[in-house]
Amino acid sequence: MTSDLVLYDSAISGNAYKVRLLLSHLGLKFQRIEFDVDDGSTRTADFLAKNPNGKVPTIRLADGSHLFESNAILYYFAEGTKYWPASKRERAAALQWMFFEQYSHEPYIAVVRHWVAHLGKTPQNEPQLAMRTERGYHALGVMESRLKDHAWFAGEAYSIADIALYAYTHVAHEGGFDLARYPGIRAWLARVADQPGHIRISD
Amino acid sequence: MTSDLVLYDSAISGNAYKVRLLLSHLGLKFQRIEFDVDDGSTRTADFLAKNPNGKVPTIRLADGSHLFESNAILYYFAEGTKYWPASKRERAAALQWMFFEQYSHEPYIAVVRHWVAHLGKTPQNEPQLAMRTERGYHALGVMESRLKDHAWFAGEAYSIADIALYAYTHVAHEGGFDLARYPGIRAWLARVADQPGHIRISD
Repeated sequence: MTSDLVLYDSAISGNAYKVRLLLSHLGLKFQRIEFDVDDGSTRTADFLAKNPNGKVPTIRLADGSHLFESNAILYYFAEGTKYWPASKRERAAALQWMFFEQYSHEPYIAVVRHWVAHLGKTPQNEPQLAMRTERGYHALGVMESRLKDHAWFAGEAYSIADIALYAYTHVAHEGGFDLARYPGIRAWLARVADQPGHIRISD
Repeated sequence: MTSDLVLYDSAISGNAYKVRLLLSHLGLKFQRIEFDVDDGSTRTADFLAKNPNGKVPTIRLADGSHLFESNAILYYFAEGTKYWPASKRERAAALQWMFFEQYSHEPYIAVVRHWVAHLGKTPQNEPQLAMRTERGYHALGVMESRLKDHAWFAGEAYSIADIALYAYTHVAHEGGFDLARYPGIRAWLARVADQPGHIRISD
């Protein structure tokens, strides 16, 4: 049987959570296979045949092929649903925020959380902690500039751009980030958590 | 007049070159406004009103709105053309490689090139140069795993996934990267440069 969706997953990964959250909204069933992101188990020859970049999330689709990169997986399942905007201009805005998330947000918000909450400080990561924290706050400021007068990132509806940015923003405090100065972000976090079919990262 | 496309550009930026390359393929005219990426001129209040993340490329569209993130701009202009794949599965593959480019390729291949070719070594960047070079070679290895038996990244045709990855790969040698071990990449670079409407980064 290759007809079932199989998610190569990690309970602590916000990137993997994005996929579980969208699949929950869509009511799609899938098998979860848990990986440790730090022990090299995503770098085995068997795993690299699924994703040559050796990362979770990776998903096996119904046709047996594998798709990786969390935001590309979001696109694949959202297309044709209300989670992917109806106009080209808003689709481009959704992707704009999703690329912002991967380049200017995740390497700071998510990486600092992983170092602080999971790995602990090491001689390798400690020298970069202050710089990455500063850039994480810069990313939060960019988000606030959008959310201070908009409910959602792309157009006027909840979309995969919101899912992509929610994943690590809602656990940013685990990395020591203080959201007190960002009322727009805090109100948006509550709106996202109120969507039908919402699940928590720990679910 | 807000009917003309205006590209907030940088001659040394591969991310900006991606946009110029696609617009050349499509035969679209645009105005270029050049910025220095290192002197803070993309962080002025005037520029932040266009892109709150303070980066080029940013583009003013015909409706006067601004779009940022190079790969989102590629999507906007490619949709409905042959540069955006016709099937959902191949579109997801294109985005997979475009997110790979921004997360696992650009921060290493492009940043090392910028440090080596433009800024020079500094006390801030030199400690990271070896790690970033190693990860750049890892990204090249992932690309080679695709190109060793495929002509293009998404499906069977040249697409914006190829444009996104070409931009910094074809100038990787300026950062000291040696492509001798990557025959698949070298053959693909030649195929990209042979596409109708191709322009060079220096054009």
